[in-house]
Amino acid sequence: MELQGHVEALYLGDAKGLEKTPCETLAFTLEGITGDKHAGFTKKADARNPEYKRGTMMRNDRQWSAVVPDELAEAARLMGIDCIDPAWVGANLTFTDIPNFTLLPKGTKLVFPSGAVLVVEAENMPCVLPGRVIASKYPDLKLSPNRFPKAALHKRGLVGVVERAGLVHVGDVVTVQVYEAAIYSFAG
Amino acid sequence: MELQGHVEALYLGDAKGLEKTPCETLAFTLEGITGDKHAGFTKKADARNPEYKRGTMMRNDRQWSAVVPDELAEAARLMGIDCIDPAWVGANLTFTDIPNFTLLPKGTKLVFPSGAVLVVEAENMPCVLPGRVIASKYPDLKLSPNRFPKAALHKRGLVGVVERAGLVHVGDVVTVQVYEAAIYSFAG
Repeated sequence: MELQGHVEALYLGDAKGLEKTPCETLAFTLEGITGDKHAGFTKKADARNPEYKRGTMMRNDRQWSAVVPDELAEAARLMGIDCIDPAWVGANLTFTDIPNFTLLPKGTKLVFPSGAVLVVEAENMPCVLPGRVIASKYPDLKLSPNRFPKAALHKRGLVGVVERAGLVHVGDVVTVQVYEAAIYSFAG
Repeated sequence: MELQGHVEALYLGDAKGLEKTPCETLAFTLEGITGDKHAGFTKKADARNPEYKRGTMMRNDRQWSAVVPDELAEAARLMGIDCIDPAWVGANLTFTDIPNFTLLPKGTKLVFPSGAVLVVEAENMPCVLPGRVIASKYPDLKLSPNRFPKAALHKRGLVGVVERAGLVHVGDVVTVQVYEAAIYSFAG
């Protein structure tokens, strides 16, 4: 199955912390996004990899992250706030016009006009760190940082790797090739 | 779901052509198998990647390949021959005691005692190249090289990448963590 969506905004992770810098273009190489702190073929195991000792070198399956505003708006509604800006939660890309974005299966490909191809590795599990950033944006509400992980479950977007290099621009059409496991025939 | 199997044999792709060299140990790094021609974070697009111009640099999702003898024996039976040696079809690993090996889903992890972890990327689609090697082993039968792609469909094993480095030895227990997509709760 193929869907088409659009690139609404792009963000570069060029600074410490979770918040990212808006930009008009991202350059994807096979290592990830040029200039982004999550780029690399490898990474150190962290709290998301409890099966490995922290710091163990492992394959980097989180070269990029992406969200859609309608899912973040629903998480914001559940938290009782006006909005969650994608830049607050560390996304590199925001898309529009892709229904149930966070439910896209592992192996789904995102194809861009330049030839760049991103592959979905996993749902991005929401954690307390963006919850702290969001709480800091609404100081009067005294939000618990734990509100975000609950409200954003299955609404926090996807992470993945780069299959083919290329540029991605704000306004680009993105073609979503939904991964389907092979259908097996046992007829011989 | 977790299964346990065993490493029956190992092969290093250290020469031209499809056939590989049996060995007692393989060293897996995050780039693939040390000394194997398929190692690397990247590869050139080939006949298996018709969506890209041949030679385009892309992510290497085929750092290793693995088969099980019972599936190859069934392919051999369908071809009317005695056996297909895993070394003839370019496998790096052969396992025993893993039922329906080629049907394991993308994302399944193979965990070894050293700590090495391999991740399944895809079923290895059988092509005519090993068909030629197999035909050459039975010269009297004058087999068509096209017999193998048909007989070995869904019996030709898996390919994938390395998530964590380590050694793999003949005789090792392998723990198979079968990938299951997240089960989504919409209860909020």
